[in-house]
Amino acid sequence: MSESTDRDARHKARMQRKKALIDEKIAQAQDEYGLLLVHSGNGKGKSSSAFGMVARALGHGIKVGVVQFIKGAASTGEETFFRRFPEEVSYHVMGEGFTWETQDRQRDIAKAQQAWAVAQRLLSDESVGLVLLDELNIALKHGYLELDTVLADIEARPLLQHVVVTGRGALPGMIEAADTVTDMSLVKHAFKSGVKAQKGIEF
Amino acid sequence: MSESTDRDARHKARMQRKKALIDEKIAQAQDEYGLLLVHSGNGKGKSSSAFGMVARALGHGIKVGVVQFIKGAASTGEETFFRRFPEEVSYHVMGEGFTWETQDRQRDIAKAQQAWAVAQRLLSDESVGLVLLDELNIALKHGYLELDTVLADIEARPLLQHVVVTGRGALPGMIEAADTVTDMSLVKHAFKSGVKAQKGIEF
Repeated sequence: MSESTDRDARHKARMQRKKALIDEKIAQAQDEYGLLLVHSGNGKGKSSSAFGMVARALGHGIKVGVVQFIKGAASTGEETFFRRFPEEVSYHVMGEGFTWETQDRQRDIAKAQQAWAVAQRLLSDESVGLVLLDELNIALKHGYLELDTVLADIEARPLLQHVVVTGRGALPGMIEAADTVTDMSLVKHAFKSGVKAQKGIEF
Repeated sequence: MSESTDRDARHKARMQRKKALIDEKIAQAQDEYGLLLVHSGNGKGKSSSAFGMVARALGHGIKVGVVQFIKGAASTGEETFFRRFPEEVSYHVMGEGFTWETQDRQRDIAKAQQAWAVAQRLLSDESVGLVLLDELNIALKHGYLELDTVLADIEARPLLQHVVVTGRGALPGMIEAADTVTDMSLVKHAFKSGVKAQKGIEF
């Protein structure tokens, strides 16, 4: 092989490697961004699955924010456990004492908005890599929060931040906005045949 | 009220409280037992949800055993995180290097049986309150383990021990044996539109 042919070959190989690197960076820039995941449906596992993701994120050294929109809806076990890591998990249980439709709707809306203010803080914190908005779908379904406001705040979050929204009855607009939607449906449930809730499993 | 009427009333109240206590104990004896939960389906969240239950159990001070039947199938994030608590979580990743159908079936069966031996140890340990058999359904579907043996060992576990089995394609016998079956079905997935797997979310 002549010297110039050899040089040409080396140049070509170098350029190919460079192109591969650039392509990879372009692909990264397009692909690596925070996802919006929605867990809905009538089955179990919507919140559990989200808390499994919290564990996963912590395993990767990612900081997590949790806002529970319905106090008592989620497991006290998970709360107790994840509160062990206050440096890594910012944990907020909100929505205590909702009166729901029947009673003082204005008060409920005010409480939901307090909860959303906490969510907004997490959704604008670049150091938080995963935000879990547990049972947010329920607050939206009851009209305690405006879907447009919620989606706009979620949309405006830091580029790499992941958000998980749980709760049955996800609104169509939430499903539309989501990257991933999982429907947990009930096939068979021990409660149906009279077995009572088990600590560590159901709550 | 005369003295004897008063005494009768107090006696009656005491007896009523006693009966309520006894009824409650009978109800407990009938109702409180370990559940077999199965997470199946093609959607996301089967393993995540089980790991959320691990966190919940730990929050209640319940010891946990984890056997992953397919190495690499579950999140490295969850493994990293839960290995932080060796006193509370007995974590076993098995099934490394399965060749599946195509290659050395006898070797795969041997590996699955090694994994099952670890599961058997956990399933006979009264100090373990929750056993997660992650992707066990896959090993069963490939016929690497006998369903009858697996169900017999699960059935013979300590009365209060909960078991969670994950993996798509749960065999009908597993669904039959389960107290709770949740089907995670995919409604929408970012991967489908070309978004790549995200650390802390997908793995």
